[in-house]
Amino acid sequence: MEQVTELSYALDTFYFLVCGALVMWMAAGFTMLEAGLVRAKNTAEILTKNVGLYAIACIMYMLVGYNLMYPGEPILEGILGQFSVLGRDDNAAADVIASGGETYYSGLSDFFFQVVFVATAMSIVSGAVAERMKLWSFFTFAIILTGFIYPIQGYWKWGGGFLDAAGFSDFAGSGVVHMCGAAAALAGVLVLGARKGKYGKDGSVKAIPGCNLPLATLGMLILWLGWFGFNGGSELKVSNVEEANAVALVFVNTNMAAAGGLVAALLLARAWFGKADLTMALNGALAGLVAITAEPLTPSPMAATLIGAVGGLLVVPSIVFMDRSFKIDDPVGAISVHGVVGIWGLLAVPLTNDEASFGSQLLGIGTIFAWVFITSLIVWFALKAVMGVRVSEEEEYEGVDIGECGLEAYPEFAKTGE
Amino acid sequence: MEQVTELSYALDTFYFLVCGALVMWMAAGFTMLEAGLVRAKNTAEILTKNVGLYAIACIMYMLVGYNLMYPGEPILEGILGQFSVLGRDDNAAADVIASGGETYYSGLSDFFFQVVFVATAMSIVSGAVAERMKLWSFFTFAIILTGFIYPIQGYWKWGGGFLDAAGFSDFAGSGVVHMCGAAAALAGVLVLGARKGKYGKDGSVKAIPGCNLPLATLGMLILWLGWFGFNGGSELKVSNVEEANAVALVFVNTNMAAAGGLVAALLLARAWFGKADLTMALNGALAGLVAITAEPLTPSPMAATLIGAVGGLLVVPSIVFMDRSFKIDDPVGAISVHGVVGIWGLLAVPLTNDEASFGSQLLGIGTIFAWVFITSLIVWFALKAVMGVRVSEEEEYEGVDIGECGLEAYPEFAKTGE
Amino acid sequence: MEQVTELSYALDTFYFLVCGALVMWMAAGFTMLEAGLVRAKNTAEILTKNVGLYAIACIMYMLVGYNLMYPGEPILEGILGQFSVLGRDDNAAADVIASGGETYYSGLSDFFFQVVFVATAMSIVSGAVAERMKLWSFFTFAIILTGFIYPIQGYWKWGGGFLDAAGFSDFAGSGVVHMCGAAAALAGVLVLGARKGKYGKDGSVKAIPGCNLPLATLGMLILWLGWFGFNGGSELKVSNVEEANAVALVFVNTNMAAAGGLVAALLLARAWFGKADLTMALNGALAGLVAITAEPLTPSPMAATLIGAVGGLLVVPSIVFMDRSFKIDDPVGAISVHGVVGIWGLLAVPLTNDEASFGSQLLGIGTIFAWVFITSLIVWFALKAVMGVRVSEEEEYEGVDIGECGLEAYPEFAKTGE
Repeated sequence: MEQVTELSYALDTFYFLVCGALVMWMAAGFTMLEAGLVRAKNTAEILTKNVGLYAIACIMYMLVGYNLMYPGEPILEGILGQFSVLGRDDNAAADVIASGGETYYSGLSDFFFQVVFVATAMSIVSGAVAERMKLWSFFTFAIILTGFIYPIQGYWKWGGGFLDAAGFSDFAGSGVVHMCGAAAALAGVLVLGARKGKYGKDGSVKAIPGCNLPLATLGMLILWLGWFGFNGGSELKVSNVEEANAVALVFVNTNMAAAGGLVAALLLARAWFGKADLTMALNGALAGLVAITAEPLTPSPMAATLIGAVGGLLVVPSIVFMDRSFKIDDPVGAISVHGVVGIWGLLAVPLTNDEASFGSQLLGIGTIFAWVFITSLIVWFALKAVMGVRVSEEEEYEGVDIGECGLEAYPEFAKTGE
Repeated sequence: MEQVTELSYALDTFYFLVCGALVMWMAAGFTMLEAGLVRAKNTAEILTKNVGLYAIACIMYMLVGYNLMYPGEPILEGILGQFSVLGRDDNAAADVIASGGETYYSGLSDFFFQVVFVATAMSIVSGAVAERMKLWSFFTFAIILTGFIYPIQGYWKWGGGFLDAAGFSDFAGSGVVHMCGAAAALAGVLVLGARKGKYGKDGSVKAIPGCNLPLATLGMLILWLGWFGFNGGSELKVSNVEEANAVALVFVNTNMAAAGGLVAALLLARAWFGKADLTMALNGALAGLVAITAEPLTPSPMAATLIGAVGGLLVVPSIVFMDRSFKIDDPVGAISVHGVVGIWGLLAVPLTNDEASFGSQLLGIGTIFAWVFITSLIVWFALKAVMGVRVSEEEEYEGVDIGECGLEAYPEFAKTGE
Repeated sequence: MEQVTELSYALDTFYFLVCGALVMWMAAGFTMLEAGLVRAKNTAEILTKNVGLYAIACIMYMLVGYNLMYPGEPILEGILGQFSVLGRDDNAAADVIASGGETYYSGLSDFFFQVVFVATAMSIVSGAVAERMKLWSFFTFAIILTGFIYPIQGYWKWGGGFLDAAGFSDFAGSGVVHMCGAAAALAGVLVLGARKGKYGKDGSVKAIPGCNLPLATLGMLILWLGWFGFNGGSELKVSNVEEANAVALVFVNTNMAAAGGLVAALLLARAWFGKADLTMALNGALAGLVAITAEPLTPSPMAATLIGAVGGLLVVPSIVFMDRSFKIDDPVGAISVHGVVGIWGLLAVPLTNDEASFGSQLLGIGTIFAWVFITSLIVWFALKAVMGVRVSEEEEYEGVDIGECGLEAYPEFAKTGE
């Protein structure tokens, strides 16, 4: 029996690590997606931003964030301990067995899974502020979001705080991760303003196409793959029949929602613009994924497809009107994909999960949005006052790659765009 | 004991899900491979085709295909049920235990694994018809292949139909998946005709190089990785010593066959053309993978290497003669890689597996090819009559990206090609 | 009980296979990294080199290397056996149970894991000799390194040879894999000389930027992901509480070391050059990964971050001085990342692991470096004498793609560089 308990613990831990590795891989997804959707002259900088923010998120969450979000966990001592020998605890097996099933996976595997989530939230911001933001101001914001803003609202839900007590339901983070990132991004875009030349004084709106759509497509597909870990790992356990079935359903629903979102967005774009707009298809798939993230376990696969499809139908007009009507310049559509559709995902929970209510969902949406948006706005304004947030006009014209990174992403490929 | 049965079920389910995620990742492989092997002006469209067909395959297989292919499975009810709570069946554990080992993994994990296979078959088609086909006719074909043509022949073998009864042996789908895709592709290419300028009236053949070989190489490597899930998952079980050894052997043989195919094709290209032709090396590796897919379990790793190498030796002349002699314009060599080598893989089964016979293999090859080729041909002709299958000459000259998708894949990189 | 032993065996085998697949994926990482860091005109050749060396490594290690490195293993017979039915050993389960825990995973899963390690070592070489080396001389060297040079030193440590007996500690191969690759690369670069135009007669040093930084970034992120398998799999076992905790710690430490290395290198580059140099950030992350590879199990995550950060701080000046002061032309910085930082990683082991000593570590470093460097030098000189190692000046000027592969990597993108 004890050997079975140990084996069960090992399987749950391994499952958690595999899912965490898939979520880490989403960092590559965001990096490629965003690199594909900006202009060539700003590509090296957005690559630097993405790899840098991932590293910053890991370090800040280790130092501060994890402890803020899960205050009772004894693991931090080990993480921060100098040169301790954490992996070799002679009593570990006895403790697991004595816990009677309460401790069923390695605390470190949980830390690994959580830390890659933080990076996901921060990745959402980088796309929205692309092509005109100062790199080191961005990194400073990343320190504050990943160390403080994200973990505090994460605690409210996943750490056992008041949103959890109030019945707010968010399985894998349509709100805690995706809408959180979008709210921070929106604050950033408002402080930063639009890219030069994006909106004419006569009210005209200029489309600025991404320079490398195969990269953007690769990024979307990486995110799709990584999302199996994101949602699948959020079940937290796989080692019995019920849990294994639950994880399998989460995988299926995640896949179907993405498919539904993609097809819906593609059809809508075809009907609206007359063309099969690839970037809308990509955003439709991501919208499907964001939409199902709040509750991938209670819908049937058919329902998951529809939840994703609604996400895809929402994201297309959201991107269009955010741009044309509100003049919010979000080069990759991150605020629509993760914010607008994140809200849809949260509101869709009560449709299939009897334990959720619209009231609790609205409370959660309002609380998280207000907290992240307001604190982010304060931080962005403080950064603007202290370091500045926007590159100079010349640097923006020339491309931030040269100014910020001192190199070009594609030095040999002639540029014909502006 | 019951806990052990549950744990065993959980491990098999998790293994299936991990393998399924790897096969889903093959969608990215095909997407990158094909995007790298077409010209820049047709890249956005082939990206759209690939992500679109994947989503369509998932939806059609859920709605229709899975039920056609595995008619007895009770799972469909759950999948199609509106807002059912599929993951939470209170009797699931009791049922598994009562089954005495017959039910050893989640039905949903099987659905997930199967659905990504369908997409693989359809991905094979998209490369062959690249650069001149109407996007929406292609999507319509995808609906029919993934919903009907594929599942029906899949039932004949894997659903327990007459090919299975006749002793036809196809472990992971050299025939059911790869040759199936190639037969549909061949029918499409015949109906569609060659790209403009490909074959001169004087009998000359123009090489049309792919625009982005790093992408194509990435695509091949993604496919190689994904194939561990494709073949490794097809063992269906890992949770005892015999099965674990079998899965390990399948991983090793899959890897060795790809290596053998790559080296053989590279050496043959070097000897024949005097150059180490990268695209032949890529197709050689894929040929090795296709070749071993029909039987990755009975060969020794050395034999697997040789089976893969023969695949690599076949694919080079197949691509050359298909192009030069038969004037079949297959921009990515998909018909050779998946069709010609798929047949080789099926015929190689009796060499190492005593339970297979050449007669049964030939029966399976003939049946699947005839079914898929003829039904596809009918569908392609019907599409030609109803919607048209080929873009206009102007659109083809300008590139299908503008015409079909309304955007360019690389708007800033100057094009020097035609 | 027997079922539990079988299940445990299955979990350990599956864990090994998943980790091995992640390491195989590192082949794609090196391929993209190197393709992004060379010029466009030499891209197809470096792609060919990378996919070719992976295949060669697999075949040579199967034929010769594995047997040299692990001489006692009975597995080789099965691997080389013609058409044997290796996966189906009726006594396998009985043997595992009778072994009393000694045989706890499939020998084939170990072979799979080991074979992808060999390819990693060889991949390190290809970047350093980029842009001027004859392709077939390179492949010949790959045959010798992967079949003989690597396995012999691998045996000294991991096969139970004298370095293991002497207390040399190298968990996952900072020395056996990374420094080994770097030593072979250094020998190659010394024999080959610098690229034309790299060092002026007046002592000037010309920077030759890579042509596709998104690819290089993708490559780094692939390597980061793959490294979870590289280090995580090197624990060899996951199926009880202690081992599961150990594997989780290895995942966390691997991630933190990469983050530490990236941030440290980025800050140093910012301070030194005034710019956030993306290529230094990429090399910093890789340096962090190499540094933690020798001992990812005894440091706390905090200590792992610092060990990685020191790696990042070392790699920047190492790359700069190797280039400017020593005129060692290593286009991708492989010798610094894998060699200099590999040595740091080995020397850092005694800081957290009481069972290691600086003396043993120095013995290991000296032995491995001397063996690999000297044998490689001999082979490179022999190749120079027999086949030549360097392409002609014209071919180098024109790009090795045309000369060696007969095709271009980006035929449609205008080149503005040299």
